[in-house]
Amino acid sequence: MKEPAIVLMSGGMDSTVCAAIAIELGYEVCALHVHYGQRTQEREAKAFTDICDYYEIINRLDIDITHLSKIGGSSLTEINMPIKKAQLDKEGIPTSYVPFRNANLLSIAVSWAEVISSHTLFIGAVEEDGSGYPDCRREFFDAFETMIDAGTKPHSHIRINTPIISMNKKDIVLEGMRLSAPLHLTWSCYSQNDIACGHCDSCALRLRGFAQAGFDDPIEYRERPHYS
Amino acid sequence: MKEPAIVLMSGGMDSTVCAAIAIELGYEVCALHVHYGQRTQEREAKAFTDICDYYEIINRLDIDITHLSKIGGSSLTEINMPIKKAQLDKEGIPTSYVPFRNANLLSIAVSWAEVISSHTLFIGAVEEDGSGYPDCRREFFDAFETMIDAGTKPHSHIRINTPIISMNKKDIVLEGMRLSAPLHLTWSCYSQNDIACGHCDSCALRLRGFAQAGFDDPIEYRERPHYS
Repeated sequence: MKEPAIVLMSGGMDSTVCAAIAIELGYEVCALHVHYGQRTQEREAKAFTDICDYYEIINRLDIDITHLSKIGGSSLTEINMPIKKAQLDKEGIPTSYVPFRNANLLSIAVSWAEVISSHTLFIGAVEEDGSGYPDCRREFFDAFETMIDAGTKPHSHIRINTPIISMNKKDIVLEGMRLSAPLHLTWSCYSQNDIACGHCDSCALRLRGFAQAGFDDPIEYRERPHYS
Repeated sequence: MKEPAIVLMSGGMDSTVCAAIAIELGYEVCALHVHYGQRTQEREAKAFTDICDYYEIINRLDIDITHLSKIGGSSLTEINMPIKKAQLDKEGIPTSYVPFRNANLLSIAVSWAEVISSHTLFIGAVEEDGSGYPDCRREFFDAFETMIDAGTKPHSHIRINTPIISMNKKDIVLEGMRLSAPLHLTWSCYSQNDIACGHCDSCALRLRGFAQAGFDDPIEYRERPHYS
């Protein structure tokens, strides 16, 4: 029997490549998707389902933590705070920052891991591109692992795998291609629910990654600017 | 202006004494209550409201994370898993354990703290009585603080205060009495929603605490066994 691993799967490209890596490593993927009141959550949920179907993943958990939007503080969850157009050379912490989001997601993942006796989590966090989220750095995940050991049953020993943390989007596209990951089913746009806008930070990073990797992005865009 | 502190308030005695301590220390209490699908959540929410009204707390956040009950693994959230009668001398981890609950609660508290620029959390965790929850030990909170520093904005510096962690229930009752905390408004019973059962672990610990402190518990019980 394969060892179970919980993979945080947003429906985006990074976490899909992360799931592909977990599968290649021989794990039985248990897929955890989290809604948190983000604008595009329905489209992301569809992507999650499509990707799980593609990989024939049986163990799926779809969790609603819309309370994070009640707390506010981020343009991803507050409708009245406009999504900025991409400024890929911008420094500092972007307004799409959901305070302490990864800690909330990982805490849920650890609760599930304890119940199903899984010792392995995968999260497709990426430090790259000056994106500046403090909870995307390996230093944060190391501290989280120490905290898990202190806060779970003695034999839990849950580890957090971040296999793409040092990759840039070009590397992620290449890794996805190598693993035949279903990138055509993924959703990245922060702004639209039907056809990707091509202009938000997330679309821009994705399009630039494909351009640098020398592949065409298989999804449709309203506009497809060239980022290099 | 007073400095804001987020206090996790379940509606129980421990967190109420914790709030009383935060108030005595001069903080502006921001009260965070969390539902997680526990059987007695409506009664606990009423206690929370009553205690906030008593202290005239304006900043209140009531959060639903019933997904923890979707994950399961605990008799507090799974209706089909019976609540055990109190065995106060029992060793090990009780079945009322919600896996990694405090990490989930604290992650929400930190998200809120980041938004309102609070640097101080209070949680009424207690190590005592062999209750055996790994996420109630100071070692866990220390690891959590380190993880917060790694995962939040550089100037967040959020600390977790656990002022009653080394107290037993007798000490907590005495501290509550010293501070004139509204213990008559608190709810502790794991099992009932109207009149406390007197028999579950939580009722037993509470009644024993009052007995040892030499006070009468001001709330009503269906039965009031003597625990010593």
